[in-house]
Amino acid sequence: MHKFPIGVLGASGYAGRELCRLVLEHPALELKFASANSQSGQRARIAGRDISFIASEDAALGGAALVFSALPHGASEEWVNRASAAGAKVVDLSSDLRPGTTTRSCIPYGLTELTRAEIGSASIVANPGCYPTAVLIALAPLMKKGLTLAGATISISAASGVTGAGYTPRPDLLFAEVTEDFRAYAVGNEHRHLPEMQTFAKKLGADNDLLFVPHLLPVARGILATITVPLNAHIDRPLAIWEEAYSGEPFIEISSETPALRDVVRRNVVRVSAVTAKGLRQPTLIVTAAIDNLMKGAAGQAVQNANLMLGLAETMGLPA
Amino acid sequence: MHKFPIGVLGASGYAGRELCRLVLEHPALELKFASANSQSGQRARIAGRDISFIASEDAALGGAALVFSALPHGASEEWVNRASAAGAKVVDLSSDLRPGTTTRSCIPYGLTELTRAEIGSASIVANPGCYPTAVLIALAPLMKKGLTLAGATISISAASGVTGAGYTPRPDLLFAEVTEDFRAYAVGNEHRHLPEMQTFAKKLGADNDLLFVPHLLPVARGILATITVPLNAHIDRPLAIWEEAYSGEPFIEISSETPALRDVVRRNVVRVSAVTAKGLRQPTLIVTAAIDNLMKGAAGQAVQNANLMLGLAETMGLPA
Amino acid sequence: MHKFPIGVLGASGYAGRELCRLVLEHPALELKFASANSQSGQRARIAGRDISFIASEDAALGGAALVFSALPHGASEEWVNRASAAGAKVVDLSSDLRPGTTTRSCIPYGLTELTRAEIGSASIVANPGCYPTAVLIALAPLMKKGLTLAGATISISAASGVTGAGYTPRPDLLFAEVTEDFRAYAVGNEHRHLPEMQTFAKKLGADNDLLFVPHLLPVARGILATITVPLNAHIDRPLAIWEEAYSGEPFIEISSETPALRDVVRRNVVRVSAVTAKGLRQPTLIVTAAIDNLMKGAAGQAVQNANLMLGLAETMGLPA
Amino acid sequence: MHKFPIGVLGASGYAGRELCRLVLEHPALELKFASANSQSGQRARIAGRDISFIASEDAALGGAALVFSALPHGASEEWVNRASAAGAKVVDLSSDLRPGTTTRSCIPYGLTELTRAEIGSASIVANPGCYPTAVLIALAPLMKKGLTLAGATISISAASGVTGAGYTPRPDLLFAEVTEDFRAYAVGNEHRHLPEMQTFAKKLGADNDLLFVPHLLPVARGILATITVPLNAHIDRPLAIWEEAYSGEPFIEISSETPALRDVVRRNVVRVSAVTAKGLRQPTLIVTAAIDNLMKGAAGQAVQNANLMLGLAETMGLPA
Repeated sequence: MHKFPIGVLGASGYAGRELCRLVLEHPALELKFASANSQSGQRARIAGRDISFIASEDAALGGAALVFSALPHGASEEWVNRASAAGAKVVDLSSDLRPGTTTRSCIPYGLTELTRAEIGSASIVANPGCYPTAVLIALAPLMKKGLTLAGATISISAASGVTGAGYTPRPDLLFAEVTEDFRAYAVGNEHRHLPEMQTFAKKLGADNDLLFVPHLLPVARGILATITVPLNAHIDRPLAIWEEAYSGEPFIEISSETPALRDVVRRNVVRVSAVTAKGLRQPTLIVTAAIDNLMKGAAGQAVQNANLMLGLAETMGLPA
Repeated sequence: MHKFPIGVLGASGYAGRELCRLVLEHPALELKFASANSQSGQRARIAGRDISFIASEDAALGGAALVFSALPHGASEEWVNRASAAGAKVVDLSSDLRPGTTTRSCIPYGLTELTRAEIGSASIVANPGCYPTAVLIALAPLMKKGLTLAGATISISAASGVTGAGYTPRPDLLFAEVTEDFRAYAVGNEHRHLPEMQTFAKKLGADNDLLFVPHLLPVARGILATITVPLNAHIDRPLAIWEEAYSGEPFIEISSETPALRDVVRRNVVRVSAVTAKGLRQPTLIVTAAIDNLMKGAAGQAVQNANLMLGLAETMGLPA
Repeated sequence: MHKFPIGVLGASGYAGRELCRLVLEHPALELKFASANSQSGQRARIAGRDISFIASEDAALGGAALVFSALPHGASEEWVNRASAAGAKVVDLSSDLRPGTTTRSCIPYGLTELTRAEIGSASIVANPGCYPTAVLIALAPLMKKGLTLAGATISISAASGVTGAGYTPRPDLLFAEVTEDFRAYAVGNEHRHLPEMQTFAKKLGADNDLLFVPHLLPVARGILATITVPLNAHIDRPLAIWEEAYSGEPFIEISSETPALRDVVRRNVVRVSAVTAKGLRQPTLIVTAAIDNLMKGAAGQAVQNANLMLGLAETMGLPA
Repeated sequence: MHKFPIGVLGASGYAGRELCRLVLEHPALELKFASANSQSGQRARIAGRDISFIASEDAALGGAALVFSALPHGASEEWVNRASAAGAKVVDLSSDLRPGTTTRSCIPYGLTELTRAEIGSASIVANPGCYPTAVLIALAPLMKKGLTLAGATISISAASGVTGAGYTPRPDLLFAEVTEDFRAYAVGNEHRHLPEMQTFAKKLGADNDLLFVPHLLPVARGILATITVPLNAHIDRPLAIWEEAYSGEPFIEISSETPALRDVVRRNVVRVSAVTAKGLRQPTLIVTAAIDNLMKGAAGQAVQNANLMLGLAETMGLPA
């Protein structure tokens, strides 16, 4: 089979390595280079192959059909532009080009199930953040149908495994600091992913404020979002809304049981459930959504988008 | 020092063992018996001492100045009555006699900092549940001052370590099932602790619905509650409300940083923080509270209550 | 492709579920029944499919081309005989028919890389224990060449994840008991797997006593064995011995770095390393070997054997 | 009570913080300064108190009755000399002055139970490494009695929690790298602690080679050493040897059950067990020993030594 030459910028972090792994195991992609500025010259063993990290400056951007950028926020946009100028399509995993961050309105947001029509012909796609992927996939069916209570606050409590914080060694991410602990962070509605969620929620037609409290879990991978949604009116069979909205979607699972991290780790899926909160005066749903932050929350969704951009089957090379 | 003879019913579970440990290390208490029906005749090593579990039927209830019952919900009330009839004071750690469960209105609820006046002279005290302890200590200052928005839902997302589920072997609590996982349970506002929270919140004067979603954490001990509270009006310096309400309380810590489990494990404290949620139309606080579910959430608070019931210093034998 | 009908007896434990998963994902096998006496009538979700457990008594043994028995030790042999009498080939994962346990000398021991010639034509194969798989694959190249010091003790320190203890709920396997702990068990050279190792080591020509101390790790999966081997004489390049012995083996990895659990989990491999112990009077090697106890240590190796017994490619359906 | 002024150099690491905590909670010690070069000017919350780290250069060494140095290996000796020259007694937790490393023969080795006579009058004490503490306390009774087989190798397999590797952020110590993993390191008998063990074992009269393989455990604290000891002759009741050797020792526990990490964490004890290995031609004991690497393996033993050096009760301020 013909294989598209692929580059990965920022390949040494958790998302970057997962990208390399998915590219190496993909039947129609071929890894041409993997850059990692801080580890340039070093090697890593990924998917049974020895990968040599090069400096981004040395990357043959023009030789790639598509480049993934997993460079840090702030540093990525420049390289996205360079790769694009060199003729490569680009999927940017940083927040630089996402809604709410950039003013470049022409960059499609790669929340594939919700923006699929814009992805196929795009030359650059802004891959969503991990939390927004779980939250927006969970909320979109309600918002698109106008079922959320206008003006009301939607309260989102989410928890992520530590790979969400990246591979950079920080004392607070050492094993001995994280084990047997749990804490909220960016409390006060100040997380970097919030503008992305707010902007896209508005685009979906919702007139809601989002209150987002992330937590750090003592697990390696996975995000669980628990979302309280005030409704216009009681809904009889809530799950039907998601079943209808995502009918036929290969990477969305609707479940009558609340999803757990172990249902989704190492898989490119969002698993969603929804139940009515009993005993409240205000009709309210509790929506839960789980993803693997490195798969559907980063590298998996990036490959899903890349598949579309390269004219491949959307599911190719992705474990559902 | 004179030591009060103490009995522990249901001593083989996590709360029961913690009770035995606290009694054994307490300068004014002496463990007279520890019952554990399923393990009667067996021994356990607690606090460096060998404890022999007896059957509850064999317990010399009348010889105890005070009996702690950590028997299962439903089975406890009968033994509370027996011990009380035999002349012992009783702290019941089950839910049998808590507000919202029992109709016996005369039993004080042992959320010590909020009900202290009723504890000292009580012959029976209903020790609060672990989640209600964290949640009600966190919410009481707002509720007592009438600051919560009338009619609004307060959304509580809480997560507990696995000792909260007890020592009974269940396949879903095996190490291999819990490690690297995280999930919500009793979703739909159906947790057994909810009536207790609702009843007491009403008593505090709050006109709010409570929406409570608990989660199971891959840690042994600790509860973190993250609470979204709609307010009547914006509050300038939220922490001041808790500082004032709990001034001088030895077991309440008010913190400008969001509390983490490791701030509280193996200590008989509630640690609370509160910040204003930015960017919302509805003035809203995010209140976080952490406890050790076996200490302030069970055995520690039980000893705190017992100290008062026996005329001892409230802090005696408790690590703050 | 034609698919062989397969049965799994004892399917609800960790090894049994892993077997079901491997059969379901195998291109040439088809799961016909899965029995689980204690959970008969219940359903489990495995590999994206709903499996109904039946009682072993209800299993159509004769309809299966091959039956895997993951029944408990002691209970398995009877069912192996029944399935065999009904015309099915059988791979027995219990210890009932392993060397050192049974006196039925005609049952091949399915340590595939070392007994391959006997497996293809066998109607019953005794699948090795998890510890013996790691230890014997690690030691065989030295023993077959007569390099171990005659009469000397080989000291084996090994550690296993908790799935090695099975899915039966035991208080000592609860998350809260295992997290942050580590301990040896069956100390005194008394582990059930020892006769299997001794008997096979003798068959390999070794005149050595084995001293085996297993430990329980706070991880779900994986075994690491650290083995001290006194030698007849110094060996210049120890790794070459394993490279030669296992040249071309798809499921054996020889590594210059000491293997870690994460190198092998969810893979059907043994990863081995060996280095000379510096500064000792007695020439000594330190051999380390890692496996996934549920894969190469149980279900994976069972499928490897089944592939040979059914005339399929040995690697079919197995992630290397 | 009079309190001795105490300084801690290198206070920001795991051992340094544990030292600060023990000093702060000690009835006869008072923390005068805590230095941490990389974090100088920063504050830490330890034992409920806010500690400000200063630069070592700014430490008033002469104002301290005793200085603990938890500075890195190689950097410590200079500061030990400076503090000693300024008139302070010193306990050095680095390896700089330990047997096998230094040639300064006059520095007592602070393995308190075995060298107590030298500690009381010492002005400088070299505090043992964590692994040597567990291993030498375990082996000393056999070695002192000449029971180990002359010329034979003693094989030591030990596993440590990650705090043993220090607080320095290293990618391989991140939570996501350590969880669910286990590996050996410094394989080949090359660990930094080996000379210390060999030198002291020789001093105890043993004619044995030591083979030491350490492992990294996914736990925060604790060391378990599993030791294979060839004997001159069979021993009938092995535990009696340790019971006799350590009779009356407050920090040594002899146990008929194999010790687990949870028996010793947060306590200043070594817990030892020993059983005869069955079925071997060579009489052999399996000796297991567990410690908390930060307590008896570092800060706890350092305070134990400091107590003696200051004329205090050896057990003062130490949780046994």
